[in-house]
Amino acid sequence: MDFRARPGYLRPMPRYALKIEYDGAPFAGWQRQKQHPSVQQAVEEALRRLQPDAPGIAAAGRTDAGVHALGQVAHCDLVKEWDPFRLREALNHHLKPLPVAILEAVQVDEGFHARFSATERRYLFRLLCRRAPATHERGNVWQVAYPLALAPMQEAARRLLGRHDFTTFRSTMCQADSPVKTLDALDIEEIAVPYGQEFRFHVRARSFLHNQVRSFVGTLERVGAGAWTPDDVQAALEARDRAACGPVCPPQGLYLAHVTYPQDPFQA
Amino acid sequence: MDFRARPGYLRPMPRYALKIEYDGAPFAGWQRQKQHPSVQQAVEEALRRLQPDAPGIAAAGRTDAGVHALGQVAHCDLVKEWDPFRLREALNHHLKPLPVAILEAVQVDEGFHARFSATERRYLFRLLCRRAPATHERGNVWQVAYPLALAPMQEAARRLLGRHDFTTFRSTMCQADSPVKTLDALDIEEIAVPYGQEFRFHVRARSFLHNQVRSFVGTLERVGAGAWTPDDVQAALEARDRAACGPVCPPQGLYLAHVTYPQDPFQA
Repeated sequence: MDFRARPGYLRPMPRYALKIEYDGAPFAGWQRQKQHPSVQQAVEEALRRLQPDAPGIAAAGRTDAGVHALGQVAHCDLVKEWDPFRLREALNHHLKPLPVAILEAVQVDEGFHARFSATERRYLFRLLCRRAPATHERGNVWQVAYPLALAPMQEAARRLLGRHDFTTFRSTMCQADSPVKTLDALDIEEIAVPYGQEFRFHVRARSFLHNQVRSFVGTLERVGAGAWTPDDVQAALEARDRAACGPVCPPQGLYLAHVTYPQDPFQA
Repeated sequence: MDFRARPGYLRPMPRYALKIEYDGAPFAGWQRQKQHPSVQQAVEEALRRLQPDAPGIAAAGRTDAGVHALGQVAHCDLVKEWDPFRLREALNHHLKPLPVAILEAVQVDEGFHARFSATERRYLFRLLCRRAPATHERGNVWQVAYPLALAPMQEAARRLLGRHDFTTFRSTMCQADSPVKTLDALDIEEIAVPYGQEFRFHVRARSFLHNQVRSFVGTLERVGAGAWTPDDVQAALEARDRAACGPVCPPQGLYLAHVTYPQDPFQA
């Protein structure tokens, strides 16, 4: 006899992983706060329209105020078995009119944890260089009014790759136990746009320190502008001193793009 | 002696052509109205910060409420000679914080007229097919929740090319003298996007009837959805009857993309 059929056996609640896209502008970040609207709160409230006592959810990355996501991942435990398609549709219905979309919902086994099972995070940063102000892309990019040089930014980015003490590129508010992280990729792509250029920074690591990507991009922008050299960036890294960092750039160009798991729960 | 140097000769005011990008969402369209904010009013008010009695301006295309522009063209006459770069910068400064950007300002000769000199208009329409609601692109696309088939839309679009009486695809409010126009291109491009597809309609003609592009796209969407056949579209065209048109689609996917002149006043 299957022990799960015995009386008194507590069947675990089904767990669902959610892939979430959002515009960070109206939110004080992912994490629930008392005073300000958060993406976590928005998703939890949608879940509680389906199940009033639904427990809180955990996410792969705690994005800051104004930071966007293309593929945030969170998991939730629900009492009822849900058809994943219907769960996604119901959540999207209740999330309206907020700019938060559940791209996919899948049932996962109870060992899956959106944050602790993740083996890699990928971020995208969009930087627009153009004199005329952004209109259609306003809020989707960080804009500077002057051109930047790609090659020195790429050279400086190479100096940051690998395992380092990233104290320089870490917010003083960072709660990580150690400033030592391994940066797996920091690729910069230049795209011609009318009357300007856009740089897309593709950044990959197992995990990141608080404000690490925005500290990188803010510093690399200084290199692209000619104010810093790649050697300056290397010296800043080696200083292991927050004061050596370039300016931290604003959040509206930053996207949590993808979270990797040993077994991808999402097909697409 | 140059007659322009004679006393009493009234030197014409210098004329400037402006290439303008805007997000149409906050506006009741291009054209100035008594009760509602318009793009024309925004640009004219910026001009009047430079010259309080600056006359009104004319544009190549009178975009409807909510319709965007990537390259609207207008011209204005100013008393003072302006360095084109400084004129653009000053206008962009005074347009803040509206989502209207002067991409370029150039001095043109007095024979240039933004509307009457134009020999071609190009429109772009962005149609997103995805179940999950748009977040970052909200307001930049028309969204439907189901997939569409490209090939039948392309076939139907071919039936619309050339010189026709487009009464079917013309708003009853249209003030054009004749419903006969020549459609030079209606190309449809399919782009894969995460969890969906985007169709970009590229439409070209010397001039358009009121609501013509939105009538085309709304009708072609019905073909892509399988509700209409390309033959139905041809029959609708031949009916020369507004009632034969498919649903007119909403404005937020439509962009006035480019205006062509015999001699392009803008370099880019």
